[in-house]
Amino acid sequence: MTQHIFINEVAARDGIQAIHTPINLAGKLALINACAAAGVQAIEACSFVSPKAVPQMADADELFAQLPDTDRIQYSALVPNLRGLERARAAAVQEIAVVLCATDTMNLRNIGLSLAQTIAMCIDTIHAAEQYGMRAKAYVSVAFECPYEGLVQASSVLDLCDRMIQAGASEIVIADTIGAANPRQVKDLIGECVKRYGAQRVSAHFHDTRGFALANVWSALEVGVRKFDTSIGGLGGCPFAPGAAGNVATEDVVLLTEQCGFSTGIDIAGLRQAIRVAEGLVGYPLGGRTRAWLDVQDKKQTGQKLS
Amino acid sequence: MTQHIFINEVAARDGIQAIHTPINLAGKLALINACAAAGVQAIEACSFVSPKAVPQMADADELFAQLPDTDRIQYSALVPNLRGLERARAAAVQEIAVVLCATDTMNLRNIGLSLAQTIAMCIDTIHAAEQYGMRAKAYVSVAFECPYEGLVQASSVLDLCDRMIQAGASEIVIADTIGAANPRQVKDLIGECVKRYGAQRVSAHFHDTRGFALANVWSALEVGVRKFDTSIGGLGGCPFAPGAAGNVATEDVVLLTEQCGFSTGIDIAGLRQAIRVAEGLVGYPLGGRTRAWLDVQDKKQTGQKLS
Repeated sequence: MTQHIFINEVAARDGIQAIHTPINLAGKLALINACAAAGVQAIEACSFVSPKAVPQMADADELFAQLPDTDRIQYSALVPNLRGLERARAAAVQEIAVVLCATDTMNLRNIGLSLAQTIAMCIDTIHAAEQYGMRAKAYVSVAFECPYEGLVQASSVLDLCDRMIQAGASEIVIADTIGAANPRQVKDLIGECVKRYGAQRVSAHFHDTRGFALANVWSALEVGVRKFDTSIGGLGGCPFAPGAAGNVATEDVVLLTEQCGFSTGIDIAGLRQAIRVAEGLVGYPLGGRTRAWLDVQDKKQTGQKLS
Repeated sequence: MTQHIFINEVAARDGIQAIHTPINLAGKLALINACAAAGVQAIEACSFVSPKAVPQMADADELFAQLPDTDRIQYSALVPNLRGLERARAAAVQEIAVVLCATDTMNLRNIGLSLAQTIAMCIDTIHAAEQYGMRAKAYVSVAFECPYEGLVQASSVLDLCDRMIQAGASEIVIADTIGAANPRQVKDLIGECVKRYGAQRVSAHFHDTRGFALANVWSALEVGVRKFDTSIGGLGGCPFAPGAAGNVATEDVVLLTEQCGFSTGIDIAGLRQAIRVAEGLVGYPLGGRTRAWLDVQDKKQTGQKLS
């Protein structure tokens, strides 16, 4: 029996939030529409953060009112606190995500709260979302390595996951925020999450900073993970630039999993179109590790000479 | 206990044979010396093929006479037939490799023999090598997909492996010659090889055409493989060019395996130097999927500004 892979497309939020080029509402909608047309079944559309802190996300309320295919696509939004949750509720968001960084320093740098304070804030937000009838998932970020504190112990990440699940989180997203994880760590940490919470409640979020993302995806698949955050074209940092830390590309994960016999319901030609839309927005070439091969397939189909 | 990974560096043969730029003897020796200095413990140095068919390898005899660190490094050479074996013997080669393509058409296109004829030729060559006191390993090429016949059945590959092992091959190298394998196929086929022949007699040879090579490496590691063919900088085809089909890069496999807790005995700074030597030979930038990250590490060390 073909097993289904659940792809949560995060370019509109994690991708766009990471880049400096301002993207207007029409641009974000064009990107989301292109991903929707390719058959993506879940999209992280935006974050309800302070417009002063993150101007790129200032139009989150307007955006949510104009999303396509809301009956078919599972949309989510990131909320950093109860104020963000209220805005998300007003925008009729049905699924929110809280973000808990695994280290003290990262939470302080990210939102000015200690780890203990962030845990409390996440629990409060999950409880409030529950009362509003919203699904709440929890990201555990820098789950393998923190840029300030270095290697993160799996035991402390699991403790945070336990607390989020106990608080009522519908799902845990283990995030390798800086792309430092290797497949052995993925096997150990995410494998344990799957054992504790079941595959339905575990998702993996990889960045391709070191070129290990697809190895990490395979490692996660092997311990039972069937849900992945991915970003069209790897948006969120150019893989060819020094210091790049792009998300794992949607097309890479779709190609890998489909070729391994899984189904995603996503159309590769549609993804190519979405990459072109994203490239138009950011003004530079995008594409994951499968880019060269996809280009060859395109040329073969159109009868162009292979150089 | 740290487990050792055995890296067989193939840039001097598989890499250089695939490129059009003529590389002279001094260039080949510079490349091999740089790889030796980085701590590589095995090198496929050349192939004893017809100089008319492959002018790039015409100086194989001279090359073998000038190889560095012959007491420490395990050198091998590819031989297509008994004539090649005689030349290898005259050059005092201690380990040869025969190449058996898994499909009829590929053998016909490669050396003008049918599959049955190639099997017989490989068996004769292995037997003759044994009599000369040489180790003989056997490549089974296009082991996952053939550019002419498409998908290759694992059962027929295993049958070929059995025959090579029965003939006395010291080792089987499962080669994804066109870079079409996915990690599930690797698990199934190479996992079965490890079961049948033991990890000491199985090696994996990947190309990174689709961007799956490191996922395939992790998949192979998980079924017990500890021996890999790799090519410095991914030499053998540029990963950024349409139609590229470069070997998996030595630095990618070294970084992945070392970060997963294995040891290779290879020095990354030495590999960076070897990449520069290879770039000087071919005249264009090289580097695997870890390139962007390695560049960042370099800049951090030298105090340069990250762009």
